[in-house]
Order: sequence, then C-alpha cells, then structure tokens
Amino acid sequence: MQLGLIGLGKMGANMRTRIERGGHKVVGYDPRPEVSDVASMADMVAALDAPRAVWIMVPSGEPTQQCVAELAGLLEPGDVVVDGGNSRYTDDEPHAKTLGDKGIGYLDCGVSGGVWGLENGYGLMVGGSDADVERLMPIFDALRPPGERADGFVHAGPVGAGHYAKMVHNGIEYGLMHAYGEGYALLNAEPLIVDVEGTMQAWTQGTVIRSWLLDLLVRALQEDPGLTEISDYTPDSGEGRWTVEEAIRHAVPANVISAALFARFASREKGGSPALKAVSALRNQFGGHAMQNTAGKNVGETGTPLQNPSNTAPPN
Amino acid sequence: MQLGLIGLGKMGANMRTRIERGGHKVVGYDPRPEVSDVASMADMVAALDAPRAVWIMVPSGEPTQQCVAELAGLLEPGDVVVDGGNSRYTDDEPHAKTLGDKGIGYLDCGVSGGVWGLENGYGLMVGGSDADVERLMPIFDALRPPGERADGFVHAGPVGAGHYAKMVHNGIEYGLMHAYGEGYALLNAEPLIVDVEGTMQAWTQGTVIRSWLLDLLVRALQEDPGLTEISDYTPDSGEGRWTVEEAIRHAVPANVISAALFARFASREKGGSPALKAVSALRNQFGGHAMQNTAGKNVGETGTPLQNPSNTAPPN
Amino acid sequence: MQLGLIGLGKMGANMRTRIERGGHKVVGYDPRPEVSDVASMADMVAALDAPRAVWIMVPSGEPTQQCVAELAGLLEPGDVVVDGGNSRYTDDEPHAKTLGDKGIGYLDCGVSGGVWGLENGYGLMVGGSDADVERLMPIFDALRPPGERADGFVHAGPVGAGHYAKMVHNGIEYGLMHAYGEGYALLNAEPLIVDVEGTMQAWTQGTVIRSWLLDLLVRALQEDPGLTEISDYTPDSGEGRWTVEEAIRHAVPANVISAALFARFASREKGGSPALKAVSALRNQFGGHAMQNTAGKNVGETGTPLQNPSNTAPPN
Amino acid sequence: MQLGLIGLGKMGANMRTRIERGGHKVVGYDPRPEVSDVASMADMVAALDAPRAVWIMVPSGEPTQQCVAELAGLLEPGDVVVDGGNSRYTDDEPHAKTLGDKGIGYLDCGVSGGVWGLENGYGLMVGGSDADVERLMPIFDALRPPGERADGFVHAGPVGAGHYAKMVHNGIEYGLMHAYGEGYALLNAEPLIVDVEGTMQAWTQGTVIRSWLLDLLVRALQEDPGLTEISDYTPDSGEGRWTVEEAIRHAVPANVISAALFARFASREKGGSPALKAVSALRNQFGGHAMQNTAGKNVGETGTPLQNPSNTAPPN
Repeated sequence: MQLGLIGLGKMGANMRTRIERGGHKVVGYDPRPEVSDVASMADMVAALDAPRAVWIMVPSGEPTQQCVAELAGLLEPGDVVVDGGNSRYTDDEPHAKTLGDKGIGYLDCGVSGGVWGLENGYGLMVGGSDADVERLMPIFDALRPPGERADGFVHAGPVGAGHYAKMVHNGIEYGLMHAYGEGYALLNAEPLIVDVEGTMQAWTQGTVIRSWLLDLLVRALQEDPGLTEISDYTPDSGEGRWTVEEAIRHAVPANVISAALFARFASREKGGSPALKAVSALRNQFGGHAMQNTAGKNVGETGTPLQNPSNTAPPN
Repeated sequence: MQLGLIGLGKMGANMRTRIERGGHKVVGYDPRPEVSDVASMADMVAALDAPRAVWIMVPSGEPTQQCVAELAGLLEPGDVVVDGGNSRYTDDEPHAKTLGDKGIGYLDCGVSGGVWGLENGYGLMVGGSDADVERLMPIFDALRPPGERADGFVHAGPVGAGHYAKMVHNGIEYGLMHAYGEGYALLNAEPLIVDVEGTMQAWTQGTVIRSWLLDLLVRALQEDPGLTEISDYTPDSGEGRWTVEEAIRHAVPANVISAALFARFASREKGGSPALKAVSALRNQFGGHAMQNTAGKNVGETGTPLQNPSNTAPPN
Repeated sequence: MQLGLIGLGKMGANMRTRIERGGHKVVGYDPRPEVSDVASMADMVAALDAPRAVWIMVPSGEPTQQCVAELAGLLEPGDVVVDGGNSRYTDDEPHAKTLGDKGIGYLDCGVSGGVWGLENGYGLMVGGSDADVERLMPIFDALRPPGERADGFVHAGPVGAGHYAKMVHNGIEYGLMHAYGEGYALLNAEPLIVDVEGTMQAWTQGTVIRSWLLDLLVRALQEDPGLTEISDYTPDSGEGRWTVEEAIRHAVPANVISAALFARFASREKGGSPALKAVSALRNQFGGHAMQNTAGKNVGETGTPLQNPSNTAPPN
Repeated sequence: MQLGLIGLGKMGANMRTRIERGGHKVVGYDPRPEVSDVASMADMVAALDAPRAVWIMVPSGEPTQQCVAELAGLLEPGDVVVDGGNSRYTDDEPHAKTLGDKGIGYLDCGVSGGVWGLENGYGLMVGGSDADVERLMPIFDALRPPGERADGFVHAGPVGAGHYAKMVHNGIEYGLMHAYGEGYALLNAEPLIVDVEGTMQAWTQGTVIRSWLLDLLVRALQEDPGLTEISDYTPDSGEGRWTVEEAIRHAVPANVISAALFARFASREKGGSPALKAVSALRNQFGGHAMQNTAGKNVGETGTPLQNPSNTAPPN
C-alpha cells in the first residue's frame, strides 16, 4: 500500500526503509529538503491515492500538534492519520477529534525498538478503532518483528491506548535500566569482582536476568570498559515523568520507576543537591559536624553554639 | 569426568541430568534415600576416583556449612569442592580455609536459570583459583548454555566472587521484576488499556524492554489472566537483603533494588503497616481527619481537641 | 476590621473564633443554615462595609472555584478576596484574573495548624500584591501564632506563592510523618524495646528529632497503645500528589516525599498489590517457587516446566 | 554523686558541664592531657569512691571496646559502667558480659541533643537492669531536659535497648532532615517563591511541620542564605546504615530512611554515579541518544548501528 510519512529523522528514516522492504510505497516529507521526497505536506498528500494513510513521526507536543492541524486541512474523509511519535496519550483524544470532525480516522501507535528496529522490527502498541487498525495492518506488519503478530504488536484499546502503553513501556524501561545500573555500580565497588565486564556478559545467557537491554549494556562496556569516557549526566525525554504522573493519578505505587526518574534528575543538578546542602547544614547546626565547602574543604565544625535556635528556647 | 553431587532437589536433580547429558558420570547423594545413588556422603566419596570433584547444591547457611565440614573429613588433598548453592559470599572464605587446610580446593559458583536451566543451560559465575576452575571446566561447560563460553560463564575473581556476582544478579532480578510489576499495575489501572495481557505480550519482541522475565510474565498471565488466583504475598530468600546490605557497606545508592525488597516486606505485614497506622493516627491528631478502624469504618473524626499536646503548649 | 468568611466547617469555624478573639467582626456564610450568620453569599456581602474583605475556606477545586465566580459578581472594585483553602496553586492565577477583571483584589493563603490552630495560632503563607497583603494584615495577625510575625507568617511571593508554599509544606509533612512511622514500626519489631510508647515520649524533649508531630504521635499512642484499634488505610488529600508532580516538573528529586505518598497508595490497594502479584507469579515461573493463593495456601510449586517460554527458545 | 567520665570531646565536655551544674562531681579522663583531670584511666578510677560509676563517651567501635576492656581490669564488683556513645547495639551484650563476669554492671545510653544539649538537656534512652538504672538516675536527671522525666528519658528495655532506640532515633533523623531538604529544594526551584528563607521561617510556628530541626535549618539559612558556601557532600556516621540493616533484618519497609541514606551516598560519589553512566550508555545503545562526556560535551549520537548486540540476533 501507499503511506505518507512525515518526519525522516533517526526513527522515521529507518522506519521508511523497513516499510519499503515490506513492499510498500512511502512518500516521505521532512522540512529538510535534502532528505524529503516532496516540497511540502500538501505535495505529499497530492502524491498519495485516496483513501490515504499518513504516518506522523515527529517530536511530541507542538510539532506533532501542528502536523495534525495541517493534515486536518489537507486530507479528505476516509483518510487515516497515525501518530507514531512519543506523544502524551492525552494529546490523542484532541487529535482524533480534530481529524474526526473532518471524517478522517486517527490511530496512535507507540513504537519501540530504537535504532535497532530497522533490522529487528519494531514493537508496536496501537490505539484506535478496529476499522482504522485494519486499514493500517499492512504497514504494521511491515514494521513489527517477524514471527507471531501477537509478539510485537497489540491493538491495546481505543484512541490513546497505544501511547498509554508506550508510556508505561518506557516507564518500565527506566526501572530496568536503573536496576542494571545499580548492579553494575555494586560490582564495580567490590574488589572480589575482578572481571566486571565479563560478569555482566556471562549474565546474557542462561540467567534469569538476561534481556536485550543487558546485551546492549555489555556491548557498551565492550566499547568503553569502565565507562570512563562518559559522565553520569542523563536526560529524560518525558515518558518517565508521565508514567509517574499517571501512577499518581491512579494511586498506583511506583517506587522503582520514580527512583529511576529521580536519579536522572539528580545527575543533572548543577552545583549539587539543595536537599543535601540543607542536610549538611543541619548536621552542622545540631552536632557541630563539619560541612564541606564548595572547594572541598571541611568548614564550620563547632563547639558549643552561643545561642539557642530562636523558637525553641528551653524553659530554664 | 566424574562428579559427586550433594543435594538432588529442584535445582540439583535438573543439574544432574544436564551434566549427565554432557557425558559425565554423576554420583548423587541426598538425605532422601529414594532419590539418592548412595547411602551416605562417605559412600559417595568412596565411589569417586581421586582426584575427586564434589558439588554441593543444598540450601545456604547451616546445611551448606555442614556439608563442607563433613567433606573436609572425607576428601583428600587434591580434591575440589564446589558450592553451587545461594550461599552468602562471606561464607566462602571460611569454607575455602576449612578445606584448604586439608589440601582440598574450593570454588564458589553462582547458578542462575531456575527450573529452565535443564533445557536452556545455566548462567554460571565462579570464584576461586585458576587451577580449580580449570579442573571443573568440563562440568561448567556441560551446565552452561550452548554457544560462546563467555555468554553464560565467568570466572569473576577469587573465592567469594562467584557468590558475590550471583547475589548482585539476584538483586538486579528484584529490581527488574518490580519494574515490570509496576508497569503491569499501571496498565491494569487504566481503562484505556482494554487488552493488558496482549499489551505485555506485544512487548516481548522488538521493544526495548523485551527480556526472558517478560516472556515468563506473559506466560503467567496466559495461565491466570489478571492473576486472580494468587495473593500478593511475596517471600524473599536472602540475596535481595544481602545486596542492599552490600550497597550500604560500599556506600552505593540502591534505591531501586531496596524499593523492590521493601515492597516484598510490605506484602507480608500481618495486620497492616505499623508505619501507616502511625501516619493515619497523626492525620487524626492534627487535622481531626477520620481514621479507618480494623473493621473498615471511619472513626475518630473530631472537632476542636480539648487540650494541647503535652510538650508544645503555646505561649499564650 | 470586618471579614466575610465563607465556609464554617472544621477549619473555618475555628478560624472564625480566633479572628473574633482578635477583635474583628466576622460575618460567616455556610450553606448549612444552622451554622450560618446569613442566608446567602449576597447577604454576607451586603452585611459588610466597603471596601470588603472576604475569606474563602471551602474545599479546593470546584467548590472554591464556584465561590470565586459568585463573588466576582457580588463584590465591588476595591474589595479583596482571600482563598485560604488547600487549592492547587495553579487555580490562583485564574482566580486572580476573574476577580482582577472586576477590580477586586486576590490573595492566596496557605493555612496550617489543623484543629490546634484555634489555640496555637495558624502558620500562614501568603501570595499576592503588597497592597492586598497590607489590607488583610490585621486578620493575618489575629490568625497567626503570637510572637514574632516572621515566625508563623510569610508573604512568600506573588499570587500563587501562598498555595505553593502550603503544598510544599504538606509534602514535607508526608515525609516527616512517614519517617516517624518507619521508626515506630522498627521499634515495634525489636524485642529489646520493651517500652515503645515510652521511648517515643522520651524523644519529645532534648533530642534532635523532637517536633510537634512527634508530640502528637505520642498523644495518639497514649490514647491507643500499639494503635490496635485502627487499620493502616491512609487517604491522601491532594497536596502530596501535587508536590511530587511539581518535583517532576522542576526535575527535583523527591524520593522521600514520593515514598511516603506511594505508601499511602499501597495501604488502599484492594485485593493486594498487582505489582507484587506479578513478582510472585514470576518467582513461580522461573524458579518453581510456591505462590500464595488468595486463601493463604501455597500453590503452584513446580518441578521442571514442560515447555520453554514462547519467545526465548534456546538455540539447541 | 561522683562520676568518672571518659572522653571530653565535643559531647563529653558539654555533658561534664551539665552534670556538674546538677551538683555532681566529675572526674574526667581524656587521652589529651590538656583537657584531662587525671593522667590515666587508672588514676580516674582511683579518684572515685566505691561503688563507682564510669561513663564512656568516646567514638563507637574499637575505642569504646578498648575502654570497656580496660575498665573490666580496673573496676570492682558493684561498680557500674555506662556507654553513652553511639555504639551499635550489638556491642552492648558483649560489653555487659565482659563487665558482668567481674561483677560490674553495665548500661547503654543513647544520648541525643548535639551541641545544644548543654543548655537544653539531652534526650536519653537507656538499656540495662532496673538496679543499674536506679544507681545512675541522679546523673540521668542532671543530663535530661528539665520538666517531666518521661519527656526526655526512657528506660527502654534490657541491655542494648538504649542504643537500639538511639539508632532508630537517628534513622528517623535522616528521614526528617531529607524531607525538609526536598521541600527546600522545591521552594528554590519555583520562581513564585520569592522568599524561600522567609517561607521556611514562617513554618517554625503554628504549622504542622514545626520542629527543632526546622528551627535549626532556618538558623542555617539566616547564616548562609541559599547555602551558597557549602557543597552537598554529606557524610554518614553509621546509625543510618544500621537502621536500614535492622529494617532488613526485621523485614520492615524503610523506604524513607533508606532514600535519605542513599542520597548521602550519592553526594559522595567521585566521578559520578556508575549506575547512571550505565543508564546513559544504554540510552545511547538502543536509541542512538547522545551521551555527555566527562567534559560535558554531547558524544556518541548515532544513526543506525552497524551490527546487532551479540546475543539477540533477530530471526531474519
């Protein structure tokens, strides 16, 4: 079948290749002329036979919202739009409405697999109507991993369910990565473990904790043993935050996922953690313990303080 | 080669089968006569040609310690003992000493793979001397998964390193399982997700979070959709605790693993959490908010309290 | 001065008393005629001399929003409205706009102190313009604790700052209460501690951890030693959630406050934790470990499983 | 009464002063001659009338153990030794045995109050026999805060109970301090809060979260607004670790206290967190996301990777 594909970045370009390998025709649009098949979104729409299918693969938030708005003006009743980006699921209902008012269908599709998806296939989680899912099934089949459809593809529920599932997927991902990270840190700290990299490699087969992420971590350790080249600065791209917010909304405990998220926050605190500065200052106040100043020297160690804190003067 | 194997329980019996499939001769001893090849540990030793190799596969702590003590009296210089159970790594040095004083070698070997190891092979993490590892290599090769030796086997370091690595492996396992658990809970809480089981099955291929544990969780959900048959009561068998204790000893943050461990503790609190009873009582004290009594009724909602807390009488 | 006071519930009624003790005249309105001074909000407004000051002390969200909307229609330019409830700070800017469009001033005031505020005075955190704060200062002075104004009162910033500060205050409160709760649980678990209640009472003077909350916890333990009368079911009223959401928005790690929040969520899970059911099911799947069924019996302990998980068949 | 006091450091010197103010005679011994009353522990013992009472106030672990051993050789049946340091409670039973074998009594006493104890009195938690507690009661009464004995003093249980209670006290302290720290960090992050220090000062009266630690934090903020002079590097002195270890031993969830402990660990990681380096490397591996190198530059952003991870080659 034919597919319009908006966004030919790291993910979009690979997906285009995989879809084409599946025997489909892709008309790709990207604001960067050097990678785009057409000069405009309108040209892309014009190059497709009706009823059309258009896949949006651009950053979530405003960029995706603008695509939806523009497509609502370009497409015709009977066409279908898929948002395959990492949009927050709460954007899906408005997008479905905007398009539905024009008779245009809408699907939200969480896509997992990263840069490996081109070769391995992408895990897909889709939200929307049965009819719209059916329409796009050839594309989904081209993108998903080979083998049983149910292993790598799910029609999870109505509009929003696909991005919700992807959000939870990413939340789990935060937890998994941090669990491996804590284990790695502990192996590093223990002198008995002479071969940290080898230990983690050994875990990749036979063990209970074998996984694709572990394979990748071993690969990273082979490229940079000890991870000496990089800092611990770790961004987060939104879905971990949304997962914790959803956990709060549904009153579901999420200690593991939130710990993983907060650790990333901590890695980015400039000038150190204000919370721990407060703790350090408190230790100094009550116990006269030294604090470390910004130059790393001990300061402030005291004997008996001269006066009571203002509000808790003792009775005598 | 020949191997004496002490302990023919769930793990030991499967390992025996896999070792025999590898072309080796196993003389198994178990206190239960109906599964044992020999009547006593002494008979087992007598049935092996020197230099002997004996593998202990019994519960950690006292049972393993007793085996080591008994073997120290039965074996001869040049023999080697392997502790393949989930012993705490701090037991290894004493065991190595006890045996080494008699000229007997010692290896500690963490074994992962559970009931699936028979077919898939076991992930092995070994601590001890090069010479002792070399001696046992044929057995390790029979047990480990097929393929590259480094994927499924590691000589991690000196005595203790094998159990240390296994302990960290299990700590990671706690974190991984709980991350999936939190994601599962969140999918369950969200009405948009019509197909929870299908969503998790879809994650098993192509996605970033695919793993063997996820495969198993999908399997469990297929057997008992909604996990309606079971309670959330979850034991812990020691290695999660040790991992957190080691994290403390090495001053390594372990928020994810400890959260997973504490969640298991919480699942086993009889009569509810004392900590939250205290919180509930506090809410009642300062705000007059209702508490829930043990019968689930709201109690204690108050208006103005009659007297101040004893120690903080206001100045007026 | 005169004050209109909307909402004469647990908090409002006490505050009215304290304000009147400060020498001011309060015209109270409450939808329950038996506690209301006037028949309607309009009557309340009519009973006040211009320029008026009206204090809203009703539940946050819709009830407060409705009061603001109604007051916008009843009040005159130069009047001032204070929202003293536990509104989310994001409601403040819209409220200020609604009222400001009519020339009516707006302050948001976080009020802490619970049912004890009547006697002890209330801690107040205010957001808004200097002029509006100045106008209400006599009321604030009546409500706040005796002593230095700065100990118990702050003009924290522009509109929204008062409720933001109150939200953070409550987030801290979650963490403090749970820290005491964990300590209480640990004292209970240790047989050496013969006198749990006495130990906590001893902490109320001289120690580093003495506080008003601790005084209250001791009071609760004196009323119900062992807290045997109550369950651990603990509601949350919103501000803990908002605090964690703000921590996420600002990328500030909040491990302690979120742990306290999640523990409350866990106390309210009906039928047990889905996350731990998943963990328990996983332990059964990989290790053949028994699960506990809903009747508390061990089930599912297995020997060798009959088949591999679907997606990870080993190469052989 | 008379008291021998070993250790005249920050705590010991203040305690000596307070005990003397209570009308007692203190013979102090310290290895530093310039602060010591006597030349040796033996001289101290000789200067006291039998039956003697000797208070040890030195660092926990070996220093305290050495004092106990030396006193066992110097004292006589009927004398009593008090360990007032921050010893681990597991040291108490051995100390009691060592001394008890010579007919010497033993008490363990947790002492809280820091450098403020001289003026405010110290909170005391004591373990030991009724008779020994009775013997030392005049000293305890001199040290504890004025007012009701039960507010600031407890005989918590047999030998070990005093240090156990102090350990839990310090664990709670970790949680409390970090809760305030997180709130402080959040106030700092929010532009609406113009007056962070004033907000925290306002919390010191009337609010639910008022406490002595909050008073001290306000004091620290007045001395160094913004805490700009200090780093976030925060030591821990053992009792937080022991508290979490006890929580593990008793299977008591301690998410808040452990989060506070782990945050201190994180503040001291040199070269950044290995766990987050692993997470950052993983993000790069699966998604081609940039990592930050040790110079703070983005590196490693990739397009399609050239080869699959070793162990998860897709079927096609």
